[in-house]
Amino acid sequence: MRKGKHTYLPEAGIYILNTCSIVGPNEGRGRFSSYYDQVLEDYDWDCKTHEKTEIKMHKFVIEQVIENSNLGRSDIDCIVGGDLLNQLVASTFAAREFEIPCLGVYSACASFGEALSVSSFLIGKGNMNNVICCTGSHFGAVERQFRYPLELGTQPAPSSQYTVTAAGSALLSVNYKEGVPCLTACTVGKIVDYHICDANNMGAAMAPAAADTILTHLKDTGRGEDYYDYIFTGDLGKYGRETLYYLCKKQGYDLGGCLNDCGALIYKDKQKDMQGGSGAGCLAAVFTAYIYKEMRAGNMKRVLLVPTGALLSKGSSLQGESIPGIAHAVAVEMV
Amino acid sequence: MRKGKHTYLPEAGIYILNTCSIVGPNEGRGRFSSYYDQVLEDYDWDCKTHEKTEIKMHKFVIEQVIENSNLGRSDIDCIVGGDLLNQLVASTFAAREFEIPCLGVYSACASFGEALSVSSFLIGKGNMNNVICCTGSHFGAVERQFRYPLELGTQPAPSSQYTVTAAGSALLSVNYKEGVPCLTACTVGKIVDYHICDANNMGAAMAPAAADTILTHLKDTGRGEDYYDYIFTGDLGKYGRETLYYLCKKQGYDLGGCLNDCGALIYKDKQKDMQGGSGAGCLAAVFTAYIYKEMRAGNMKRVLLVPTGALLSKGSSLQGESIPGIAHAVAVEMV
Repeated sequence: MRKGKHTYLPEAGIYILNTCSIVGPNEGRGRFSSYYDQVLEDYDWDCKTHEKTEIKMHKFVIEQVIENSNLGRSDIDCIVGGDLLNQLVASTFAAREFEIPCLGVYSACASFGEALSVSSFLIGKGNMNNVICCTGSHFGAVERQFRYPLELGTQPAPSSQYTVTAAGSALLSVNYKEGVPCLTACTVGKIVDYHICDANNMGAAMAPAAADTILTHLKDTGRGEDYYDYIFTGDLGKYGRETLYYLCKKQGYDLGGCLNDCGALIYKDKQKDMQGGSGAGCLAAVFTAYIYKEMRAGNMKRVLLVPTGALLSKGSSLQGESIPGIAHAVAVEMV
Repeated sequence: MRKGKHTYLPEAGIYILNTCSIVGPNEGRGRFSSYYDQVLEDYDWDCKTHEKTEIKMHKFVIEQVIENSNLGRSDIDCIVGGDLLNQLVASTFAAREFEIPCLGVYSACASFGEALSVSSFLIGKGNMNNVICCTGSHFGAVERQFRYPLELGTQPAPSSQYTVTAAGSALLSVNYKEGVPCLTACTVGKIVDYHICDANNMGAAMAPAAADTILTHLKDTGRGEDYYDYIFTGDLGKYGRETLYYLCKKQGYDLGGCLNDCGALIYKDKQKDMQGGSGAGCLAAVFTAYIYKEMRAGNMKRVLLVPTGALLSKGSSLQGESIPGIAHAVAVEMV
């Protein structure tokens, strides 16, 4: 059901039956260490390349979330997946093992939000019953692809973020289950370009898109800034979160009480993480591990997830393009 | 409404109000030369790089399809777009100009099929009203990214296909318009891997996925091979089309009378095109130019579009991975 200009409330209940998360060693030592389903001991996981490790991580979280739900593979109607690797090879190569229909989505680090948003339309009475959303990223694979191979030992800039090694999956279903959160609304985001060109300052590039999507969502639904217990943006990082706060304040919305950023939170303060984490696995892992479990435990009731993505390729930056941002908002509530 | 295991019939009518196509010089000399809305005189179109040309092409077909429908930008609820460039920079950088919500999709050369499939769920009573599907590809940009820069003058293998320079857009709407075709069913495809490793033989890599999707679609809907006037696969090429015919024949379906391939058709026989065209713009341009206009003219009534995609990146091939295929089926009918 349409609500306002760009926000949609699913007609049927969409229950998040189960989730699964896997993270790398650094993330395992971070703030949510006790919440993850699996923490890797190293970045290879017995694979020859980091790309193959990432494929294995995607496969793991898809397999586990099906098993944990006591479902068979043939019960799953679709895998909606994405990642940051060229041509989405991590998520698609993982999905080929399952003989399940597959849709590849890309909104950079906001891909988990796009997967949830698309699924909120796929699932419904007479349409799909069970859909898996899955995104992830691997530090080594992403560094090599977008920046430099790790072996070079390049020094990160103070305004930059670490791409997390993490993958998260969520099984969304039309079938009721007691005590699990529901997906209750989604706002599909516009691409917003403030002409930031510094690939080491992604928070600045993405904050305007996050502000646009959050304010659209609040206006569309008529909800005030106090409706949600928490708004979790994807991976703006510490400065990026401040930028977003300022942009919303200028428009008359004070999000100070509820605004959190998964990238800024995922590592502990004493970890040398610059602005925090980023990557398609960042919000995916924090949601499927920490937020989902806290909601099921009754400690959060209403959460707005706003994964944020910076749109660029290595080629686009070399050709002098700026870095547009995108953010999709998805409301998850205990109802 | 669900029909069979993986096929869905939209509850509301989905009308394809308008389309727009743009192609490069080679395609403009091809079989459908008189159908394209615009044929470029050269591969640059006053841009410094082929990547920027591709962005401009995407922008053109989005702009034109809105204008031709006498709608404003604010009437469009979403752009669902994709392309072959790393991180989808062509479609997303084009979409940033429009202030319209945007979903990036990726199924390689089957992306137009994914865009149509996703849209068939987005559009509906109480959901979105108008959605633009748009995909494209550029020969020069793709050669540089996946193979070698054009300046090297590398000789193509006899089993290979030319990536077309083309983009196509379709405006899908819940609003009735007389005499336009409707999107009446979609079958979301599974990833199928026959362990083909030759990146110069994409037809062989994609044909098994096309067979799987077409047969799933026919079984799900209970339709025989004579239901459709034409089945148009994406870009299997000439040999790939034969492979698909053989795979379906083995399963008891003789598609000889209706099976066509956009890649095999897009160039004239005398053009030196090896197996034919390929790319995310191939079926997009052939559908939005030739098929759509022939349907509106009353020369085709029922068409099954089956864009096909080969899932690989330059990195995945170098790491010894095979090339899985994917295909989505979308039924377009005059009703």
